[in-house]
Amino acid sequence: MDDEPRKHVVIVGGGFGGMQTAKSLAQSNVDVTLIDRRNFHLFQPLLYQVATGGLSPANIAAPIRSIFGRQKNVSVVLGDVLDVNPQAQTVSLKPKTSNWREDEANEVAYDYLVVAAGSTNAYFGNDQFEAAAPGLKSIEDATEIRKRILSAFEAAEIEDDADRKQRLLTFVVVGAGPTGVEMAGAIAELARHTLRHDFQNINPEESRVIIVDGGKRVLAGFKEKLSSKAEKSLAKLKIELQFETHVTGIWPHHLLVKKNNQTSQIDTETVIWAAGVAGVPLGKKIAAGAGADCDRAGRVVVQRDLSVNRFANLFVIGDLAHCEDTDGKLLPGVAPVAIQQGAYVGKMIRDEVDDQAELIDRKQFVYKDRGQLATIGRSAAIADLGKFEFSGFFAWLLWLFIHILSLAKFQNRVLVFLQWSFNYLTFNRSARLITEAGNGTDLRGTLASAGHNDQNHKSSEEVADD
Amino acid sequence: MDDEPRKHVVIVGGGFGGMQTAKSLAQSNVDVTLIDRRNFHLFQPLLYQVATGGLSPANIAAPIRSIFGRQKNVSVVLGDVLDVNPQAQTVSLKPKTSNWREDEANEVAYDYLVVAAGSTNAYFGNDQFEAAAPGLKSIEDATEIRKRILSAFEAAEIEDDADRKQRLLTFVVVGAGPTGVEMAGAIAELARHTLRHDFQNINPEESRVIIVDGGKRVLAGFKEKLSSKAEKSLAKLKIELQFETHVTGIWPHHLLVKKNNQTSQIDTETVIWAAGVAGVPLGKKIAAGAGADCDRAGRVVVQRDLSVNRFANLFVIGDLAHCEDTDGKLLPGVAPVAIQQGAYVGKMIRDEVDDQAELIDRKQFVYKDRGQLATIGRSAAIADLGKFEFSGFFAWLLWLFIHILSLAKFQNRVLVFLQWSFNYLTFNRSARLITEAGNGTDLRGTLASAGHNDQNHKSSEEVADD
Repeated sequence: MDDEPRKHVVIVGGGFGGMQTAKSLAQSNVDVTLIDRRNFHLFQPLLYQVATGGLSPANIAAPIRSIFGRQKNVSVVLGDVLDVNPQAQTVSLKPKTSNWREDEANEVAYDYLVVAAGSTNAYFGNDQFEAAAPGLKSIEDATEIRKRILSAFEAAEIEDDADRKQRLLTFVVVGAGPTGVEMAGAIAELARHTLRHDFQNINPEESRVIIVDGGKRVLAGFKEKLSSKAEKSLAKLKIELQFETHVTGIWPHHLLVKKNNQTSQIDTETVIWAAGVAGVPLGKKIAAGAGADCDRAGRVVVQRDLSVNRFANLFVIGDLAHCEDTDGKLLPGVAPVAIQQGAYVGKMIRDEVDDQAELIDRKQFVYKDRGQLATIGRSAAIADLGKFEFSGFFAWLLWLFIHILSLAKFQNRVLVFLQWSFNYLTFNRSARLITEAGNGTDLRGTLASAGHNDQNHKSSEEVADD
Repeated sequence: MDDEPRKHVVIVGGGFGGMQTAKSLAQSNVDVTLIDRRNFHLFQPLLYQVATGGLSPANIAAPIRSIFGRQKNVSVVLGDVLDVNPQAQTVSLKPKTSNWREDEANEVAYDYLVVAAGSTNAYFGNDQFEAAAPGLKSIEDATEIRKRILSAFEAAEIEDDADRKQRLLTFVVVGAGPTGVEMAGAIAELARHTLRHDFQNINPEESRVIIVDGGKRVLAGFKEKLSSKAEKSLAKLKIELQFETHVTGIWPHHLLVKKNNQTSQIDTETVIWAAGVAGVPLGKKIAAGAGADCDRAGRVVVQRDLSVNRFANLFVIGDLAHCEDTDGKLLPGVAPVAIQQGAYVGKMIRDEVDDQAELIDRKQFVYKDRGQLATIGRSAAIADLGKFEFSGFFAWLLWLFIHILSLAKFQNRVLVFLQWSFNYLTFNRSARLITEAGNGTDLRGTLASAGHNDQNHKSSEEVADD
């Protein structure tokens, strides 16, 4: 057995699922190659804090190489995975290179492949919304949203026309899931507390923050009782809720929405999209190559052991996987699911390689739901721990505690979360920089109306929100 | 006198000079409008820490509005100043507006105008160098340089060709002034300490860091004894020094340099420009409008009271001013000069407005030189305090102390400098994110050789380096 080459496990994606898979293989007799497009792991649950100036990008990102600095069986490669060939057992990889080189894609052979490439913002057939209403998936998304929010206050400060001023001070969040509620709460606090004394010609406290959603309540993944608690917390922050309302068009100076077949207009220049996510395009390629199905949100339908169709050495986990629970319910696209799936797949590979266990022994993946949490602004949250549920300040403390623990585990940076708690507790949002956009595209040029298509929200309800 | 309208003081630029002017007018019976292109004040002396992943942009930037939140006579306006009309006493301002608006420039009238618009990277007739060798003036510059340095290590990790690998691990800093020395020291530490365990196919410790300079020693603004101390510290970090060497061309894979009329080639893909700065273009417009002179580096030659030509209510201060000391020596473009000039102008305006003092009473501006400091890497520095000079760890502690004090004064954020000291002391550079470039331009398209023009360094010696 010593003569056999070590098995090669390729992991695509350095999010929660991919990181956990690699960590679970630390003691295993395999070589691991972790491929990501970025050089850092992103703690996405706090991305909305970057978008509202509470945290710096680096506070919620950790260099992947540092994390595996001491785990010597992991190689980290920066690159784009273009495709997967399950028959040949190869991934087609375009490495990220220096500033001056153009490299060809090359093939990387694997014995096991774990795809944890995640999800992207979904506009459900209204891709033209993207420029006008950015979503919140990447650091660049977050700094772009931060720029738009802060620029709107700046523009309002020098605006003489009262209507335009009010329009600039109106912020619309599309989607009432955890991301939408967190974003709206953070914008409201920015306006009502942080910026309160900063301007002379406007009163930031008079800003309107509106959540538009196609459903009937906020945080629809939670029990109704908790939703209504959350709605009370949102009302305290003077956040307006418009339910059963679908976005039909986004224009430079207004948003068109439809409710009960009646179209109305919200005057605003800042729209944030939190209405849904879909699997990255790689998912569809993998499904096609492996003869598996993709769901409507571009997620690969996986077997009970998270493998794809008949390919026992090809796994899809995390946000990109369409994985059903034992009772047939789709697992949500949240970090705990990805982490448990990564641990499950890592352990299975370890067992099979080290003990040469038979594939037939594979146990089904079972998600242990420890409950869910959502936060609304500075000191309110709701918690549903299955057996019991609660809300308010204690739920917020629990939320804080869990996030600080998770953040500390992967970053080991005591001072960072001290800074964060400090900012959070004092209303200080010190990372309020307007920096240049990441993509350099002129947004005005790509704007277009969506006509009267109200499909966007119907499908969003079927898609994991966070 | 109560019927007279309050005097309007317009300040252009929220750097050290502009901020100090506005602060000095806090108790004065004037209205102040502070105009800046950015919404934050930048602590530029630590920008090289952002470029090398030691600090996040937000750590060295403070929102200008927050700083003046309690100083009610200051209005902050985000915008570009296009021109100044000293005869009409107006500035032409293009406000920064929201994402969707195109605004016309408008005229702002002033009673006093203080221009502290600063400097930009200077390539001395070789503007084509800019894309290939970015300088270090803005947050976007710093994140671009950070991206290039980190990407070079990533590219080297997956490079099979030994020559290309070595080329990727070669970093060239052009200019041996304070910025160049600090940058080179920080890159060397990144390679030799921070990244030491992060890669599998390369040994970051084998990186070459080269400083190229047209002069004969590093930190030419310091005494020779201190320069040679600094050179010893650089040698400890294995930084190579090439003196009397001029850059004649920058190509994607190499740099052409000339020494004693002999051209040679340095294979590298990462070049950082620290060879000089020049006044922003507004300087030339002001000089032309006021009938004043500009020096070769685009700085406005000012009177002894820092006013411009015969316009007693128009001042230029800081990096944009060509101001000579009592013995005819040009004052350097450093923060203490700008701060003292801001305080001087602020006090003068206050005296004239509040006491209606005669202009004829104006005292000459005299710079109080309290000495200068430069740091080389983690725990070495040189200090020249005039009466006595020293180097090594104690100088570094002094440098740390002074910078922490200055940072704290304007930011009042205890935890930020705790984090910084912590990072600094533990070699941790946690802000090692490769994010997308700010301008979205394709750098490959704008590259060109400079031919054999060795002017760039000759003039750089006449220009303030930092």
